[in-house]
This record gives sequence, C-alpha cells and structure tokens, in this order.
Amino acid sequence: MGCQWLVFLTVLLFSAVAEASDCATDGVPIVRNISEIEQDSYGIPGLSHVTVAGSVMHGFKEIEVWLQTLAPGTGTPIHRHSCEEIFVVQKGSGTLYLASNSHLKYPGNPQEFPVFANSTFHIPVNDVHQVWNTNEQEDLHFIVVISRPPVKVFVYDDWFMPHTAAQLRFPFPWDERCYQTPPVKDEL
Amino acid sequence: MGCQWLVFLTVLLFSAVAEASDCATDGVPIVRNISEIEQDSYGIPGLSHVTVAGSVMHGFKEIEVWLQTLAPGTGTPIHRHSCEEIFVVQKGSGTLYLASNSHLKYPGNPQEFPVFANSTFHIPVNDVHQVWNTNEQEDLHFIVVISRPPVKVFVYDDWFMPHTAAQLRFPFPWDERCYQTPPVKDEL
Repeated sequence: MGCQWLVFLTVLLFSAVAEASDCATDGVPIVRNISEIEQDSYGIPGLSHVTVAGSVMHGFKEIEVWLQTLAPGTGTPIHRHSCEEIFVVQKGSGTLYLASNSHLKYPGNPQEFPVFANSTFHIPVNDVHQVWNTNEQEDLHFIVVISRPPVKVFVYDDWFMPHTAAQLRFPFPWDERCYQTPPVKDEL
Repeated sequence: MGCQWLVFLTVLLFSAVAEASDCATDGVPIVRNISEIEQDSYGIPGLSHVTVAGSVMHGFKEIEVWLQTLAPGTGTPIHRHSCEEIFVVQKGSGTLYLASNSHLKYPGNPQEFPVFANSTFHIPVNDVHQVWNTNEQEDLHFIVVISRPPVKVFVYDDWFMPHTAAQLRFPFPWDERCYQTPPVKDEL
C-alpha cells in the first residue's frame, strides 16, 4: 500500500514537472520539435491548434505563431482583435469572410475571399473576420502570426451584432492553463 | 517608328505599374499567391528569399514574415538585431550557431543547435547568431517571423569581432528597392 502511494506521488511529481515545462515563461528551449508540442481542439469542433511560439505559454512579448487545422465545414468564430494578423496557408482551401466597415455600428455583410494552398492573407487591424474551411474534401492547414500578444478577442454571434455587443474572450482557450496574472507591457 | 515608341512607352508604363504594386505600402491585396511574390537571392550565394509580408514592401507595422531557402553549405551572416525572431523549419536540416554572451565585448564561440524539419527555434533579442545549412544533401527551407520591422541588422566578420565593430546593414537587401524614407513609428 505504501509502495502504491510512492508510485502515485512519483507520477504526480512528474506530471507537475511536465505541466511546468509546458508553461515555460522563464525560458523556453531554443529549439523545439513541433510534433512534441501539445496539440488540442480546446473544445472547438473541427479545430486542431498548436501554439508554436506563444506569449502566455512561452514568454514571447511581440509575436505569436500558431499552427491550426480546420476540418471541412468548420471555422473560427466571427471576431475582431486589435493586432496585425498574417496567415500562410499550407494545405487545403477555404474562405475568408471580412467586414471592413468599421464606420457602421455592426460588421454587416462580409466580403468573401477564396484562400488556397500557398496563399497568404492578412487581417487589417480591428476588421471583423472569420476563416472557414469551405472545402468539403480536405482539412485546411495554416500558420497564423499575430502581433501584440496576448491578444484580446471580441466575438460576434452574427454579422449584424453591434460592435459594442461583441463579447470579450480572454485569455484564448489554449492560454487558459498557463495564464496567471496580466503581463505588464507597453502598448504599441 | 511612332508605333515602336508607343509600344516602348506602353511597356514602360506597365513596368512602372508592376513596380509600384510590388511596393504596396498603401494597400496590399488581402489574399496573395505566394508563388507569384518576387523570389530572389539578392546577390547572397545560396539564398532564396520571399517577403511574404513585409514592412517596407507591404506596409505591415508590427510583424514581418519571410520564406527562405539555404542551399547546402550556405548560411546567413553572423549577426544580431533588437527584435524577436521565430523560425519554423519546413524541410531539410542545419545548424543554429548562437552566442548568448552579451556580457563579453565580442560574441565568442557560439553554442551549436541542430535544427530539423518540423522544428521551431527562436533567437533571444540581441543574441548574435547564424543559421547554416550543414546538410550536404538537401536545401534548408524555413519560415522566419520577426517583430519591430524594418529591423536594423548588425553584421560580424567573425565570432571574435567586438560588438561595437559590427556593421549596420540597413535596409535589408530585399527592402532596398521599396525603401524610401525612414518610417515614423513608436519603439516598443
């Protein structure tokens, strides 16, 4: 019985060490194998997310890099954020919905942009957008780069919800485990 | 003869338009085909560089994304810069040389880190470094993400050159064509 407890405590200790090294704000190894970084849907249907280089998770201050996959027929929420965002599509195809009507009280009908393998696209700061895998056959794989992490995301139920009613989601689902106290940083 | 001149002027006009759209600081298309973006060595042996999203070239203010390839036996200069830099290796393998001895008057012997396909690595702000394709068989393909563009790069002849003697290279070779006046921006 004593031995079982020892095993239990040893497992617990190793879990704690593994947990701590995932939230490596004090020093992340210089080189990391991306296939060994945690990959999860974070409860979002169709999503696979990997934080390659994160602010909350790894201590980066000015840029954040993600690898994401969207299954056919799934996409991001309709949302906006006050940062630069650049996508590099690695595989598959889909549609970017983008509402650049910041003079209106709500996003309004978005423009549709086809995106495809080996394309890049960007989201102008604060423009309301949604990325959707509209290809029924294939997953949509892309790299996301954002500035000013950790980013505050405002989510809309639909394209006619007033900007003022959009709901703040912070921290990102994938940052919740490592998020502790608001980082002190200068605004750009 | 008049007709020949008309053809010449028309070609000149189209060239000017093409040139202007490459330096699209006033508005870059939302979606772009990466294979249609200019790819060049910029006179650097073994390099292939594509500015996917640039500050000088496209008007991004906080992040810059490049695609680079290094042929076997070639690499970057020994250099440092005051920004965050994250690499994602897509194909091939190589070596990162990194000198984190900022307390010395010169970089000194660097640490060697093997880098490989599907690995990510980062350069701590101001650390002197060099990326080299040490694989004799295969090109090294990677994505580079930097903050605070356009970045001022200080180049060293060797690892024992004093930090104070490192030479400023600005703008980057790939920015020279579009670079005009120093952008007015807040420092982070």
